[in-house]
Parts: sequence; C-alpha cells; structure tokens
Amino acid sequence: MGQVAWKGLFLSLFDYKTEKYVIAKNKKVGILYRIVQLSILAYLVGWVFVVKKGYQDTDTSLQSSVITKLKGVAFTNTSELGERLWDVADYVIPPQGENVFFVMTNLIVTPNQKQATCPESDSIPDALCYADGDCPAGEAVVAGNGVKTGRCLKDRDNIRGTCEILAWCPVEKRYKPKRPLLGSAENFTIYIKNSIRFPKFKFSKMNVLATSNESYLKSCRYSEEHPYCPIFLLGSIVRWAGSNFQEMALEGGVIGIQIEWNCDLDKAPSECNPHYSFSRLDNKFAEKSVSSGYNFRFAKYYQDANGVDYRTLIKAYGIRFDVMVNGKAGKFNIIPTIINIGSGLALMGAGAFFCDLVLLYLIKKSNFYRGKKYEEVKSTSRKSLNSPTHNGNQSPEQLGGL
Amino acid sequence: MGQVAWKGLFLSLFDYKTEKYVIAKNKKVGILYRIVQLSILAYLVGWVFVVKKGYQDTDTSLQSSVITKLKGVAFTNTSELGERLWDVADYVIPPQGENVFFVMTNLIVTPNQKQATCPESDSIPDALCYADGDCPAGEAVVAGNGVKTGRCLKDRDNIRGTCEILAWCPVEKRYKPKRPLLGSAENFTIYIKNSIRFPKFKFSKMNVLATSNESYLKSCRYSEEHPYCPIFLLGSIVRWAGSNFQEMALEGGVIGIQIEWNCDLDKAPSECNPHYSFSRLDNKFAEKSVSSGYNFRFAKYYQDANGVDYRTLIKAYGIRFDVMVNGKAGKFNIIPTIINIGSGLALMGAGAFFCDLVLLYLIKKSNFYRGKKYEEVKSTSRKSLNSPTHNGNQSPEQLGGL
Amino acid sequence: MGQVAWKGLFLSLFDYKTEKYVIAKNKKVGILYRIVQLSILAYLVGWVFVVKKGYQDTDTSLQSSVITKLKGVAFTNTSELGERLWDVADYVIPPQGENVFFVMTNLIVTPNQKQATCPESDSIPDALCYADGDCPAGEAVVAGNGVKTGRCLKDRDNIRGTCEILAWCPVEKRYKPKRPLLGSAENFTIYIKNSIRFPKFKFSKMNVLATSNESYLKSCRYSEEHPYCPIFLLGSIVRWAGSNFQEMALEGGVIGIQIEWNCDLDKAPSECNPHYSFSRLDNKFAEKSVSSGYNFRFAKYYQDANGVDYRTLIKAYGIRFDVMVNGKAGKFNIIPTIINIGSGLALMGAGAFFCDLVLLYLIKKSNFYRGKKYEEVKSTSRKSLNSPTHNGNQSPEQLGGL
Repeated sequence: MGQVAWKGLFLSLFDYKTEKYVIAKNKKVGILYRIVQLSILAYLVGWVFVVKKGYQDTDTSLQSSVITKLKGVAFTNTSELGERLWDVADYVIPPQGENVFFVMTNLIVTPNQKQATCPESDSIPDALCYADGDCPAGEAVVAGNGVKTGRCLKDRDNIRGTCEILAWCPVEKRYKPKRPLLGSAENFTIYIKNSIRFPKFKFSKMNVLATSNESYLKSCRYSEEHPYCPIFLLGSIVRWAGSNFQEMALEGGVIGIQIEWNCDLDKAPSECNPHYSFSRLDNKFAEKSVSSGYNFRFAKYYQDANGVDYRTLIKAYGIRFDVMVNGKAGKFNIIPTIINIGSGLALMGAGAFFCDLVLLYLIKKSNFYRGKKYEEVKSTSRKSLNSPTHNGNQSPEQLGGL
Repeated sequence: MGQVAWKGLFLSLFDYKTEKYVIAKNKKVGILYRIVQLSILAYLVGWVFVVKKGYQDTDTSLQSSVITKLKGVAFTNTSELGERLWDVADYVIPPQGENVFFVMTNLIVTPNQKQATCPESDSIPDALCYADGDCPAGEAVVAGNGVKTGRCLKDRDNIRGTCEILAWCPVEKRYKPKRPLLGSAENFTIYIKNSIRFPKFKFSKMNVLATSNESYLKSCRYSEEHPYCPIFLLGSIVRWAGSNFQEMALEGGVIGIQIEWNCDLDKAPSECNPHYSFSRLDNKFAEKSVSSGYNFRFAKYYQDANGVDYRTLIKAYGIRFDVMVNGKAGKFNIIPTIINIGSGLALMGAGAFFCDLVLLYLIKKSNFYRGKKYEEVKSTSRKSLNSPTHNGNQSPEQLGGL
Repeated sequence: MGQVAWKGLFLSLFDYKTEKYVIAKNKKVGILYRIVQLSILAYLVGWVFVVKKGYQDTDTSLQSSVITKLKGVAFTNTSELGERLWDVADYVIPPQGENVFFVMTNLIVTPNQKQATCPESDSIPDALCYADGDCPAGEAVVAGNGVKTGRCLKDRDNIRGTCEILAWCPVEKRYKPKRPLLGSAENFTIYIKNSIRFPKFKFSKMNVLATSNESYLKSCRYSEEHPYCPIFLLGSIVRWAGSNFQEMALEGGVIGIQIEWNCDLDKAPSECNPHYSFSRLDNKFAEKSVSSGYNFRFAKYYQDANGVDYRTLIKAYGIRFDVMVNGKAGKFNIIPTIINIGSGLALMGAGAFFCDLVLLYLIKKSNFYRGKKYEEVKSTSRKSLNSPTHNGNQSPEQLGGL
C-alpha cells in the first residue's frame, strides 16, 4: 500500500463507529423495554447500591483483642467445706482474663488424694467383680480412675464387689449436687474490653468509649438503655441467652458473647459501634445426653512434711464464656462499584435481548420487523440484487476495524 | 411449513449476524471515543489487574498455629521477698507457649491468706462505717474482698472504721508500686514459631525458614536487618509498638504482634514471607482511666500441717502479648478474571453510550447523525415509502433469530 | 418547539430501538460463533454455576466454640518417681477443655528446688569458667538458669568448672529421655464438641448429631466408617497426621485437628456436616533443629513448715492439639448470580467481537462484509451520494435518543 493508503488507515482510526439502530414504532414493545430498563435501574440503585452497599469493598477478617475482668465474692457454708468465701482468684479459670474464661459455679471436692490402692467407684461397670479373676492386674479400668491390681474387694457378705485399683485414692464420689454451690455468681459482673482492627482499612476501635467519664464506666451495667456500657451482669447474660442461671450453674454450660462490629467506614468513626448478642453454645436441648453441660477436673497439688505428694481433686461445673468477635467493614472502592455497574449494564443488554424476542417473534407484525432488523447480505450472484448500494463503496483502507 | 422450510430455518442458524455500524467521519467524537477506550483499558490493565491483582482468587481465612517460647531470668532484691530469682516457670502465664501469653513484670504479693475475719481495706467506700449498723451481716462489700460479718472495727479513738469481713485474710493492700519489680524483663527474648495454611489453596508455610542454619536461629534477633529471624527482644517489641517498656511494666498492658502473610501464590513459595508489626492494644491514651493497663489476680494454694488451706494472692501486672496472624493469598483463577474482563467490556459499552450522546445531541451536525443512526420503520401505509427496499426481502424462514 | 413537537418527543420515548444486524450468510463464521456461544454457555452453566456455585453468596467467617474432654489413665514405674498413676488432672494442660490443649507424654522432673546458690549446668557454654573472673557477679547466664554470684566452682583437680549462680537450686539436668514416660497415652480418647454458626445466614449446627443415641456416643470411635463420631483415639489422630505416636511422645509436637464445615445451605441442614482432617503443625522435617518438638516448663509451688517456698520444676514434653475450625457456607443470592450472568453476557459480546474480526479481516470476502457492516456517512458534499435515502427523513423531535 502507498503512503496515502496508510494515512487513510490511520485517519480512519479516529472515525467514530456507532451501532445502527432500527426504530420500531411499536408502543407496546417500547413501553415494555422502558419498564425493563427501569426495573434494572431500580434494582441496581435500590438493592445493589443502597441496601447491599455494592459500591463498597468489604473486610471481614478483623483482628481483635479481648480483656475480661470479673468482680464479685460469694459466701458458702457447707458441711464439707465449712464457711468459705470465694473470690476471683478462686473461681475464675484461667485467671488471665482472656476471651475465653470459666466461672466455677459448682464443684465436687475430693481432698487428700494420694497415690495408693483403694476400691474403684462402684458406679463404673468395668470395675464390678465377683472374684479376683475379674480384675486382671495392670489393666486400666475403662472410663475409670486407675489400674487394676488384681484383687476384688468385697464388703463383708456381698457376693459382688469392685476391683482394687492403683490410683489417686480415695477416688472421686460419683454424685451430682442438687443445687449449685456458687449460685450467687449470678450477681458477679464482667468487664469486657475489646479492641478491634480492620487490617485492610487500617481502622482501629475499642468498645470502651473514649468520651465516657470514669464514674459512669464503674457503675453502669449493660442493658438496652446502656448499649455501650462494657460491664455485664452474669445473670443477665445467661437470661439474654435464653437460659436460667441457677439451672445452668448446677450442670454447667457454655455461653457465647458475640460482639459484632458492622462498620460503614464511609461514615464517621463514631458511627462504628459494637453490637452485643448472647447465645448458649452447648446443646441445651439434649438434657441428659453426654453433650449437655460443661465440667472439667483439675487438682491442687500439695506435699506433706515428708515430701509425699497429695492433691485435692476438684470437679468443677460452671459456665464458660466465649467472647467471639466478628465484624465487617465496608468502604467505598471503585472496583466493586464498577463490577456492579458493569453487571447492571450487561443486564440491560439482556433486557434488550428479551424485548427483541418479543418484537421479532411474538407480536403480529414480527415478520416485518425481522426484515428490518436483519439485513441479509450474500456475496454471490445475488450481488446484482443487493448492490451497488449507496453504502458499499468504502475503500478498505478507510476502515480501522474495531 | 414444509421440509424445505425447516431445512432453511436450520441452515439460517449458522448465518452469522453482526451488528451494523454507522461510520461517522467525525474526528472529534472519534478521538474522544478512543480516549475513553484507552482510559478503560488502562484502568483495567493497570489498576484492576496489575495493582489489585483482579485475575486472582483470594483466600483470607487462613489457619494458623503459634508456638511461643520465652527465655531469660531476672534477679530482684526487695525487703518483702528478699533475694529472689525469677525464671520462665515463674513469670510466664500460662506456661504452655500459646499465641497469647503474659509476662509478669510487677506484682503485689499478699502471703499467708486464710479464711478468717479481718477488717476490710479502708480504701473501699462501701466498707467504711461508724457503727455496727453500717455493716449488715451477710452483705457482700461492693467491689470488695468479702462478706460483712456485722461488726464495725475501729482503731482506738477513731470515729470512723471499716467493716469486719469474712474473707481471705489479711486482705490485699491497695497500693501501686512505684517502679516495676521485673524491669529487666526488657532483655527477655521470645521465640515465635508460626505455621500457617491457606485451606483454599492447600498451601502451608512456617515463619522459621527451613534453610537457616541452627546457630543463626539461636543467636539472631529480629530487626529490620533480620526480617525473618523469629526471635524477638521484649524491649524492642514494646518500643516498636510505640511505648516505653519501663512505664508499661509498671501498670501492665497488651501488645499485639501482628504477623501478616500476604502471599502471591502465582510466584514461588519462597516469596511468601511473613511481615511482622507491633501495636499497643490497650488504651494507652486514657492514662488513669479504668481502661488502661493490664493486671489480674491469681493465687498459689498451700496446706499447713493441719490440712488448713492458705494461699498466697498475687496481683500480677505485666504485658500480655497477643500474636495475631492474618493473611491473604491470591492465585490465578479464571472466574474473577472473567468477571473483571466482562465488567471492563460492559464499561466499554457505557463509554460508547456516552460518545453516542455527544454525537447525537451535542455536536453541530447531530441532527444528521441521528438520522443515520436511527432508521425509522413503520409497518403502515408509509410502507410504500420505506419499502420494498433492497434489504426487506428475506423470507421469514431464513431468520433463526439469536 | 410547539406543543405538537413536545408530544412527538414524548411519544418517541416509547419507540423501541433495536440494533440493526447484518446477516452474513457465511457458514464458517456462523458455526464459529455458535461454538463460541456454546462454549461460553457451557462454562457459565457448568463451571461457574454447577461446580463453583456462582449463584451463591458465601460466608467464610464462621463463629465456633469447641469443648474438648480427655479420658484415660496411665501407669508408670520409674526409679525416680516410683509407682505412679496419671489421670486427666495430671496430664492435661490447661484442664479447661478448650480448643487448644496439651497432653503431657514425657517429662523431666526437678524436685525440691529452692532459691539458693548452686553450680550452673555444665552444658551451658556461657557458664564455663577457669577462674572467678570468668563469672562477673550479677550477670545473668545467657540461656541459663540464674544470675552469677562471682565464684567459679571446680570439682577437685579440674581446671575447668562452672559458675556459681543464684537460682532455683538444684538446676535442671539437661538430658533427653530415651523413651516416653506416658507412651500409653496412645490409647487415651478425646471427645470434641464443636458448635458453629454462620453469622451472615444465622445458621447454627453442632458436630454431635442430635439423633444419635447415647450409648453410641459413648462407645464409638471416629474412623472412616464412623465419620460423625466425635470421639477420637489419640494414637489414631497422630497416625492420620502421618506421624508415629511413640516418636512424637518422646520429643513432643503439635497436631492440628481441622474441622471443616462446607455447607450448601440451599440443601437441607442435615447435609451440612463436619469433615475432619489431621496434620502435623511443627516442623517434623527438621529433626534436630530448634524448630522441631514441643515442650515447656512449669512448676508446682509448695511451702515447707517454715513458710519457705520450694517448687517442683517440670519440663513437659507432649503433644499439643489445636482444634481449628473453618468453614464456608453458600446460599442462593441474587447479586452474585446477576454479577456472574452479567459477566457471561459481556463475554458473549467479546465472542461476537472475536468473530467480527474473523469475518471482517481474515476470510476471503472480508472486504465485502466490511462494506456491509460499516455504513459510511459524511455530512459534506458527498451527501448527494448518500442521500436523500429513504431512512434519513425523520424529524429530530421524533427521536428520544437513548
């Protein structure tokens, strides 16, 4: 091609090519198309942008740090333990104040256990015996407390006894308390300090408002009237989770304290506030199943004057609180905005496609419109019929394509 | 329809239908359109694909396991405790080396507490009394240590005293130490072992490089020059978090150690490395508020020769370290790529729509172009005017529609 | 403009404008386009919708609560400790049954440590000395147990000794046990109770099936045949993680128990079940490096009759189990559906663009088709050539644009 041709090709790059439209003066399809357009627009603006905030980039992986601090004392007077006062160091496990903590509300104490031999608890099926042969030496009692020594211990005239075991003796008595020992834990308070950070947006906040005066923070209790007070009454938490504190204190359980941060970072930071909710996490429906309640055993170890170890075994029932923080922050971002607008526009094309179907195949004069919309060309002998038309005479160099 | 008609319909399915374009030889609009096209292309390639890696599927829910191990000893010599050496088993709580651990830097010890009656601390407002009537028996002291016995204890000639309480006696003295006991904790080191896994991509990695030689791992200290050394000096961590170690050791606090894994899995696994950052998580600004500092109480329980429980109560101040791991992995995936390309193309359509507006309504000869772009058809008496045109003569059977 | 003109403009709003197409009776390009269309459709339906469930909104930030409970006893008979039985309160740290727990399988006990002076362990390089000058008083031994007193202690005729230190004395002996003390921990069982919640969909579930009978839950063991049994044998877990229990018990290690909830909430809730997998998290390849194994030190504190503190230091080796829960829930949502359909349609446009290129530039008669597709218009003297055409005579008021 010559220089002139190249120049023409280059110039044709800046010709504007616009799609040729056929105006079908059919009011029915026209109105239908406008309705479809309006619906898509309404959906895009109303639902995607206003309700779902489709113009925002979201961050759901927040970093969270929780500090908890319990307050309260309880007084008990039982035949076993005598008069005893329980304070924070006694009933909170672990003591560090992390996001998961346990408040002991009931306990079975087995004091002065030593490494020795003693009869196994008779409530364990595997330990029942009629003769020494039922207790093979060295075998661990299934779901029991120790290892069989080979002897079957019987009370006086009984024909049935229990195997002698090597264990921390005496073994724990298997009984369930009738009422919770530390029922007054209902009045304990818990102070929850939660600081969060959305790493994607580098946004940090605490649930303890910076503006609150100190005396308010010391005396307030969280409730619907005080939604931003970080101090909670244990009894209220359990009630809000739909359980009864005294029942739960007896058998134990797990309560989830959900803190939800749902932040629109396009607004002021002060509008980003925590929302608390409470739920019971252990299976409260299966009343007597193995899956209800919450307890665990731990021991305090001592040594007597001769250096012999002994321990106090405690089976602790109580309420474990799991402070679970989750959140979502949204902030304007051009990419999701464009993805959503782009999808909306593509949807317009789908609407046009649907209206085309109506125009070309469903209405009375569809034949006519089909003929107008589609212009048949065929580069054969029928050329004489179709051309020379007034629009077939461009030189190829003038067409930049695209 | 006959067989021939059906055959024609079937064949017409394979006719290619292409949109008819009108070439407007208007250089202004043409250049405008090319600029719009280039902008969209530049945005798509530059921002969406290169900067935001829009061609990648991302996984932000990583699984992480953290093992921590502290090293260091501190020597103290106080009138209360005498000469004492503190090692890891003494000052790290809990000892297991999980992702949250507490280093005790200061403490108030109340030794030999027994269950007994004694006067409540006089710094608690609720325990102040003038007569026995101010101390109703059985009532717990608000924010106090025990339960009132009903007596008001007064020093000699004082008119004001404090209620007698049943509690772990003697009660803890309320004073704040002037300087941290374990200030030398600044030189302790912490070894952090973090292994992560992106479940979506089944990719695992550790922060301890496999290639490092052992002696390097034993002697290195994390710093800007050694960004992949997993051993940190406590003092440096606190300094990088913007705090003063000695001040923080006095009142306690919480430090977040963020480990960020930002991995492009389209590159080699060795390019996926952790990035450490440090921040203070408790509210350091509220110097004297209830929300600053970090402390908790725990007790060591003993029994004397007669089997009577007594305990040493420790109010521990110190620094809690929260190792928080978060991360994001991206890997090429066809779906986000197509979504982004599709949105980009839809955007081109929006660009064309904008240029159309200019061409048809804003330039001088818009009337003319409008007439060319839109071809009015009306199936009425005007048929004689519009047709028979050279392109209205297809048989309907030849049109398969889209 | 007059009233009539405005009326015409308004009415023209409801004219339906449809793109004018050119039918190229070229079977090659027609078939190509149909293939492209079918491929895109197949990709959209098959991959995006069926495989990747592109019509669903997903939630990957699940809330999870884990309760664990170990069962089992172990009997040991060593020269050091004598006959001893280990139960849950002895070997599980911490005892609370959270999602991270440690089972002690081996230990080095250093009993009766008191605050005193004694020679440092001779396996610590920094403590070796030839004269008192090598042990500057008050300096902490690097990676050691105490603070140097300034004296160098030598055995009889040796020229090399170790520094005297102030520490908990005697110091721990540095030796590694040859075989695990609590190797029988292989037969311990662990009961894992996991309740999850997808906050976005307000969907909760537990891994313990509500329908299971109690005796099954007490006797079953998780295996391929019992994929929903929540009780696991420790030995099996370690084997499934690809390690040998006895080897691991000796040096310690970390095992991850991944619970994966991959829920399609468009199906019945009973189809949403946990999937367990097990993996070793510490670096098992680096056999002798600092990064393999898992151990920590803790102490039990006692007081003798004179109130002097002493302790038993325990270096515990064992297996830490990290129960890690992750999950993804998907539920039909209109927005991702529309985004995906929209992107698919936009892709159709890209397909048409590609076929246009073929038609207009690559086939033999492309010149002819180019002439047909693009209709050149120029509002100049060439008007006489292009017009008056039969479609150039609309009045501007009749064109509503868009």
